[in-house]
Amino acid sequence: MSENRGVLPDDSKSDVISDEPERVRLLSTGIFAAQSSAYTPTEDAHSSLRVSLGADAADDAAVFDFTGSGQLVASSDYVRGTGFTMYELGLLSSYDIGYYLVAANVSDIAAMGARQLAFLSVVRYPSDLSDNEFLAIFHGIRDACSEFRTVNVGGDIGSEDRVILSGTALGVCAPGKAVSRSGARIGDKVVLSRPTGLAGAARDLFRVTCGEHGELQSAEADTLVHAWSRPRPEVELGRFIGDNGLATSCQDTSDGLKATLEQLASASGVAFRIEESLIPIDPVVEKVARYLGRETMDLVLSDSVDFGLVFTVAQDEVLMLDQLDRELYFIGDVVSGAGVTLSASNGLDKPLPGNAWKHLD
Amino acid sequence: MSENRGVLPDDSKSDVISDEPERVRLLSTGIFAAQSSAYTPTEDAHSSLRVSLGADAADDAAVFDFTGSGQLVASSDYVRGTGFTMYELGLLSSYDIGYYLVAANVSDIAAMGARQLAFLSVVRYPSDLSDNEFLAIFHGIRDACSEFRTVNVGGDIGSEDRVILSGTALGVCAPGKAVSRSGARIGDKVVLSRPTGLAGAARDLFRVTCGEHGELQSAEADTLVHAWSRPRPEVELGRFIGDNGLATSCQDTSDGLKATLEQLASASGVAFRIEESLIPIDPVVEKVARYLGRETMDLVLSDSVDFGLVFTVAQDEVLMLDQLDRELYFIGDVVSGAGVTLSASNGLDKPLPGNAWKHLD
Repeated sequence: MSENRGVLPDDSKSDVISDEPERVRLLSTGIFAAQSSAYTPTEDAHSSLRVSLGADAADDAAVFDFTGSGQLVASSDYVRGTGFTMYELGLLSSYDIGYYLVAANVSDIAAMGARQLAFLSVVRYPSDLSDNEFLAIFHGIRDACSEFRTVNVGGDIGSEDRVILSGTALGVCAPGKAVSRSGARIGDKVVLSRPTGLAGAARDLFRVTCGEHGELQSAEADTLVHAWSRPRPEVELGRFIGDNGLATSCQDTSDGLKATLEQLASASGVAFRIEESLIPIDPVVEKVARYLGRETMDLVLSDSVDFGLVFTVAQDEVLMLDQLDRELYFIGDVVSGAGVTLSASNGLDKPLPGNAWKHLD
Repeated sequence: MSENRGVLPDDSKSDVISDEPERVRLLSTGIFAAQSSAYTPTEDAHSSLRVSLGADAADDAAVFDFTGSGQLVASSDYVRGTGFTMYELGLLSSYDIGYYLVAANVSDIAAMGARQLAFLSVVRYPSDLSDNEFLAIFHGIRDACSEFRTVNVGGDIGSEDRVILSGTALGVCAPGKAVSRSGARIGDKVVLSRPTGLAGAARDLFRVTCGEHGELQSAEADTLVHAWSRPRPEVELGRFIGDNGLATSCQDTSDGLKATLEQLASASGVAFRIEESLIPIDPVVEKVARYLGRETMDLVLSDSVDFGLVFTVAQDEVLMLDQLDRELYFIGDVVSGAGVTLSASNGLDKPLPGNAWKHLD
């Protein structure tokens, strides 16, 4: 038995179903053992936070020692997990949905300009879920925590009539540095971290093809599946804009680009004028749009859980972003008024196309 | 419309189903508006934590300003909510399950000897849940937060095929004061905060009677239902033992008294010798045991989510507990060895009866 991977003694016993105390033991002595002590404490010039009791302690709560001054940020996200269309189509594994759970929560901390502190997972499961599948979910959680520089410190496991996944991420900023949605100022530039629409394109395409790749090349199909199996929250970018006080407002694109832009403008009491020609388009999204007979910009802007960031930055701070040595997309400006308009290449303004997530219709 | 209750314009429209942005608005401008500013910051001689962005901000994450030194504690609990036997029997309302969600999470913070800082709620619901039922859940959450001196700072709402309730509670201790499960020392006294078994007795009885009161008096039935509808986590006691560094170990009784005692003894690497005659018995539990034809001590010790506390305290600190001016039960001693033995009134020792929660069988 490889203790530090929390793997069962005999992997061929794929149908073993242990009780809850045994599963707690597998987690605390296996998957998450020594994880807390291997983790670098969250420190800056202003404060230090260090895990004192983590997942390996299996206590009533996690404990952190803190000293100094700063801002603590906390966010909870439920994810559909086995209810994802992509999971139901057989394109995601138990490992993948565990990984996704962490990514979705970590993204909210990045959107506040904070560094990651810790993660709490809620994993409930039906009585017929095997130990192997149970552990696969937690391997995904552990590996994502490691990838995104956070640490699982506990949470809740137990029975339910289906798999339920929810999480809480904690993060830390220097005093006054947390970036809300409401600080965009007229004259700021609107910045998007990367092309949007991949997650939505994947869901919409594979729903139609029943998970088949169809005319996609293998690399294109991988790009679409990875939007769900290996989501990439903007951990480094979020931390950079927070550490340097660069952004006046910020939000992740997990509701889709249209919803993100509209919510940021509304929360800040300003309008955004977005240049259609400046919105980046992933070629795979363009290809999916053609296949589905939809407008590309509709897929780019609609409901798509991409975990990019949109933020606003004062014009005289823009050069600071060069330090990041990565591509960013300056897609428009903060102007007076309300709402978001799209300036098309023909010079005419129009409302944003696409569907914002969360609206019943 | 009464803005500060978040009630709908016309209560007779019990079948109104608003979309998610509207529900966020109802919460942020109604139920949780001004809640953060009305809340007393968590301060002691060592540190201060203050809500900077709460539920009314509807941002990516909640934000707290902190300064000083201390311990932050964090815990997540999922609750069955509409899956509770008591809910299915019609004995709990939507308000009640919202209230319960907070109580269950707050109890873990109390068990660490911490003061309450804040609460994050995850509430997912099916598309046919009316605004009235949705708001009732959040009224329960709000009122429980107020009762237990914490504040809802956000979380997650959205659709799912059934009601799902999960939460995360945060708390604060002075430096080094968080009480784990693992510090019990030989010679300590084992203290129970109040009689156990009510929640389990309620579930077991009403399952048999299909929710009817049967031969119970009205006040007795109320006592049983209140174990679920108005659970009482030991917020003041937890804070007192933490502030005064009184307990060497502590855990809440949400897994039942047997499981709690066994887990504390195991985590601390000691044995507990419990005197059967010193375990307090609620007369209603005794009555239910008679009705069900079960041993009273079996109901008192088995799986019952009561949210009392069990803690261990050094003998020379016991008198400090008098300051609390409340009843506490000294049920036994920490001794060398492993496991928990029950000393019966006939002088013989036996293993603890009852079923510990969480074991498959």
